Amino acid sequence: MSDLPPVSHALDDAIRRAIDSKTKPLGALGAVESLAVRIARVQGTLTPDLHRCRLTLFAGDHGIAHEGVSAYPQAVTRQMVANFLAGGAAANVFARANGVELRVVDAGVAGEPIDAPGLVSRRIAAGTRNFAVEPAMTEEQCDAALRAGDELGVNVAADAAAFGEMGIANTSSASLVAHKLTGIGLDALIGRGTGLDDGGLARKHAILARAAARTAPRLDARRALCEYGGFEVVMMAGAMIGAARAAAVVLVDGFIAGAAALAAVELAPALRDYLVFAHRSAEPGHRAVLEALGARPLLDFEMRLGEGTGALLAWPVLKCAAAMLSDMASFESAGVSGPDG
Amino acid sequence: MSDLPPVSHALDDAIRRAIDSKTKPLGALGAVESLAVRIARVQGTLTPDLHRCRLTLFAGDHGIAHEGVSAYPQAVTRQMVANFLAGGAAANVFARANGVELRVVDAGVAGEPIDAPGLVSRRIAAGTRNFAVEPAMTEEQCDAALRAGDELGVNVAADAAAFGEMGIANTSSASLVAHKLTGIGLDALIGRGTGLDDGGLARKHAILARAAARTAPRLDARRALCEYGGFEVVMMAGAMIGAARAAAVVLVDGFIAGAAALAAVELAPALRDYLVFAHRSAEPGHRAVLEALGARPLLDFEMRLGEGTGALLAWPVLKCAAAMLSDMASFESAGVSGPDG
Repeated sequence: MSDLPPVSHALDDAIRRAIDSKTKPLGALGAVESLAVRIARVQGTLTPDLHRCRLTLFAGDHGIAHEGVSAYPQAVTRQMVANFLAGGAAANVFARANGVELRVVDAGVAGEPIDAPGLVSRRIAAGTRNFAVEPAMTEEQCDAALRAGDELGVNVAADAAAFGEMGIANTSSASLVAHKLTGIGLDALIGRGTGLDDGGLARKHAILARAAARTAPRLDARRALCEYGGFEVVMMAGAMIGAARAAAVVLVDGFIAGAAALAAVELAPALRDYLVFAHRSAEPGHRAVLEALGARPLLDFEMRLGEGTGALLAWPVLKCAAAMLSDMASFESAGVSGPDG
Repeated sequence: MSDLPPVSHALDDAIRRAIDSKTKPLGALGAVESLAVRIARVQGTLTPDLHRCRLTLFAGDHGIAHEGVSAYPQAVTRQMVANFLAGGAAANVFARANGVELRVVDAGVAGEPIDAPGLVSRRIAAGTRNFAVEPAMTEEQCDAALRAGDELGVNVAADAAAFGEMGIANTSSASLVAHKLTGIGLDALIGRGTGLDDGGLARKHAILARAAARTAPRLDARRALCEYGGFEVVMMAGAMIGAARAAAVVLVDGFIAGAAALAAVELAPALRDYLVFAHRSAEPGHRAVLEALGARPLLDFEMRLGEGTGALLAWPVLKCAAAMLSDMASFESAGVSGPDG
C-alpha cells in the first residue's frame, strides 16, 4: 500500500494556462478552479474524465458502544445495513438523485454474519473489543481490514471513489484515532455524535479520557487503528489508498472519514493529493481533523450523519469542475474578446 | 404580478414530523432539512417532486459600460451569447453535467438583433442608456421587461427555475439598484466585477457615486430599475415572480441575481419564500444584498462569474433535499430503533 505514486505535477503550468484561457474572467470560478487542478493532477491530463462515482459504505460495530457513548443502541448498525440494502437511507436517496452507485460492505457488524443479497461481506469479526479496557482489534485483524479495504479500493471501477460509514459509537473511535495521531486535545475532538444530551456528553468525555490513558500519548497510524479503530474505519483507510492506486479521485466525507484519512495519509503520504474533502461536519472534532490535514471542504451544510452523505452532495461539483477544464471553450475558440487592459 | 400567493404553511408541522421520522438522528441533515421544508412549502405537499430544473439566462447591455466601469469591452456580451448558443460557456458545461435545461434570452444586447437558432428574443432595446447621466430606461421599457420576464417565468415548465445573466457592466447596475433599494452605502456594494485593477476600481467608485447623486437617496423598486437597471436585470426580476406564480422553486444565483431578487421581493413580497439562494459571490456587495434579504446561500466557492453558475452547482442539493423528504424511509417503515433515551 505504501507504493502509491504521487500525483503528477508535470502538467501544472499547462493546466493553469488552460483554465485561464477559458471564457471567464481570471479566477472567476474560485474553488471550482482549484478543484479542477486537483482532479487533473490525479488523472495526469488536461482533459479529465470524471463521470462515474461509486460510494462504498462500510458498516462495523464497536465494543465501546456497550459503555453508553452513543444515543442509539448498537442494534442500529445492523438495522441500518438492512435499510441501505432496501434503498431507504439518506445515502441511498442522495446516491440515486446524483447518479452515484452504492455498494454496502459488512466490515464487522455485531451478531451473526448478515446473509443478504447485494451485501459485500468482508467482516473481520462481530464488532471490535471495548477499547476502554483493551485494544479494539489485533494487529492481524487490522492488517486484514486494511488489505480488504485496499482490494475494494483498487477495484472501485470508477473515476471518483466516495466512502461512507455506519457504526454506532464510531465518533468515539474517530476521536481517539485523531487524538493519538495528531496530539490534539481530546476535548477538541469529542462531540455529541448522533445527539447525546449534556449528561451523555460528560459520560462520553470521561470514558474516552480513560480509554486514551491506556496507551502512550502519541501512536503511529497502525497502532492507533489497532487500539481504537473500528473495522469500518480501518477498511475505509485501506480503501482510500487502494482507490488512489487505481487513480481515482477520493472523496472524503465527514468526521469519521476524516479520521480514516488522517491514518491513511500517514500510511501512504502520497494519498493526500488524491483527496477531495466534501463537507465540514457539525461534529466539532472535524474542524481539528481538517486543520491537521490542511483541508478545506467544499460544503458546509451543518450535517452530522455520515454514510457518505456529504460526499454524495459534493460529487456534482467535482463533475462540473472536471467538465469545466475538459469542455469549456477558450477565448480563442469561442471568438470572445479578453480584458481591455 | 402582485397577485403571487404566499407559500403554504398549512403543512409545516406535518413536514417537520415527517423529516424527524426519517432514519437519521434529529436534525442530522442540517441545511438540507431546512431546504426540504422550503421546497415542501412551495409545492404544498409532504412529498415534493423536484426533478426538472431550467436555467433561463438573460443577456443585456448597459450604457454605463461606455464610462469604463468594466475590465472587458461591451462586445463581450454579444460574443458570450454566441458562446452560450454554441454550448461553450461555464453555464453550458455545468448545465450539461447537472442535467439542467438552458434557454438563452436576448433581453437587450447592443447592436443589431441577434438572429440565431435557439435564442429567445425579448429585446427591449439595443442596450440601456448611460445611467451616469440619465435614466437607464423609460417606465414603458421597464414594464415591458418585467412583463416579458413574468411570461418567461410563468412558462418555465420546470419544478425549479434558475436564472442567470450576462451583461458587461452589470455589477455597476446591481450596485446602484441595491443601494437605492436598501440605503446601504455604495462603498459596501462596489467591487472589481470581472477584474478591475485598483485604478479601475477607483474610477468605478467615482462614476457610480456620480450616478447615485442623480436621484433621491432611496427609490422604490420600479423607479430604481428604471434609473439603474439593465434589461437582463429587470427581466430576471419579472421572471422570478412569474416562476413563483407557476409554483416553481426559484434558484437565485449571485450578486446580480441578488439585486434582481431585492427588487422582485419589493414588487411581490410573497416571492421571498419561493427563493433559494445558491451561492455567496466573491463580489463584496453580495454580502450586503444577502443580509438585506435575510438570506444564507447554500454554497461559497468564491466564484464571481454570474451566468447562473452558482445556481447550477446548487441544483443537485435541492434535488437531494426534496428526495430526502419524499423517498427516505422512516424509523418505523425501516424497522430501525430510535435513541435509547
